[in-house]
Amino acid sequence: MSACVLFHFPFDPGSRTARLALGESRTDWSEVLVRPWEPGCPLEDLNPSGMPPVVQTTEAGAPLTLLEAGAILGWLEDRAKGPFLLPADPVERAEHRRLVAWFDRRFTDEVNAVLLHERMEKPLLRLGPPEARALREGRNALKTHLAMMEALATQRDWLAGRRLGQADLVAAAHLSVLDYFGEIAWGTYPALKTWYMKLKSRPCFRPLLTDRFQGLQPAPHYADLDF
Amino acid sequence: MSACVLFHFPFDPGSRTARLALGESRTDWSEVLVRPWEPGCPLEDLNPSGMPPVVQTTEAGAPLTLLEAGAILGWLEDRAKGPFLLPADPVERAEHRRLVAWFDRRFTDEVNAVLLHERMEKPLLRLGPPEARALREGRNALKTHLAMMEALATQRDWLAGRRLGQADLVAAAHLSVLDYFGEIAWGTYPALKTWYMKLKSRPCFRPLLTDRFQGLQPAPHYADLDF
Repeated sequence: MSACVLFHFPFDPGSRTARLALGESRTDWSEVLVRPWEPGCPLEDLNPSGMPPVVQTTEAGAPLTLLEAGAILGWLEDRAKGPFLLPADPVERAEHRRLVAWFDRRFTDEVNAVLLHERMEKPLLRLGPPEARALREGRNALKTHLAMMEALATQRDWLAGRRLGQADLVAAAHLSVLDYFGEIAWGTYPALKTWYMKLKSRPCFRPLLTDRFQGLQPAPHYADLDF
Repeated sequence: MSACVLFHFPFDPGSRTARLALGESRTDWSEVLVRPWEPGCPLEDLNPSGMPPVVQTTEAGAPLTLLEAGAILGWLEDRAKGPFLLPADPVERAEHRRLVAWFDRRFTDEVNAVLLHERMEKPLLRLGPPEARALREGRNALKTHLAMMEALATQRDWLAGRRLGQADLVAAAHLSVLDYFGEIAWGTYPALKTWYMKLKSRPCFRPLLTDRFQGLQPAPHYADLDF
């Protein structure tokens, strides 16, 4: 048993954030896949929210449980020797934090709660077929967010500035789920596509590319590093 | 002009979080009150989300703009000499971060988006009278959250453990807005009431107690330190 265990659901953006950040940290970790909507999910007893991601670790001796992606990112930052996914520059730190909040609230409310609800939650929870109107609404919102990210990727090496960090991993976690479902028209966003290719080539990203959703193959380019 | 300016709307929980945290840090700051839903709000040009809180500071020489409460809390932590609103203990740090995420998502979705929408946003945006069904739904959700917080306050000195920190300020920011509107039945939650009294007595809290909402007096106990 590893000194660090991650409980995650592979298509939950928060869980993907945790996997990418753990991967970047080169922590030795094992994983437990959970389906939080099913009775008996181990997170019922572990996290008051009932949701992934959760990390349990004994690496510092005493057991430590980290509930929610924010606590996992914070812990990885605390235990790193020096700046890790928050660069030293105060301007870049502020921008990473702004963008993390943007994805936590705006992107989640306007895109995930609509588009991922139709494409992912409905099949998982057997809530019937997607609704055309909701799909259209979610896709329109996604376009606005992608255009904003394209503008950032055009001006900067990484989303928040010169260094890869929390904002890139959180954004990639969200976009990669939508990309599995074929929702990202990469050709329209060339700078963002280059940014995503750089991320996709990193070792931390590999495990995500082998995830498979029940009864649905990924978009053809999903696992392609040169798409 | 102070070296640090906060743009805030007094009844926005994120803005109140920023005011409490700045107050605890004993930073010298001035304020600009904003109404983000009105055309010409200065945040239109400052923050892509258009929303408060925003801090502009030149205290380190170069100008630095902090967008959203998370960036402000992170900046205050970075510039403190040693742990400030995230205590040194890793267990307490994780718990503060969990609870901050809880308020950012769960409390905001289940309580604010319903109850504050009816009581605060509708009068501000002239959207008509509150709906009885939404009020009931929001109040029921609030009861569940208050019961959870009462359990924490019963077991601990502060919400996340032995030390005051981010979770306490974020929780108090949210509850104090609802308290203005008379939505908190403190008598039902004695441990939480004691926690809130301790917070309310701190100098950082004073400015919030003088806020006034257009055309509506606060609940009689709102500004009372011994309620």
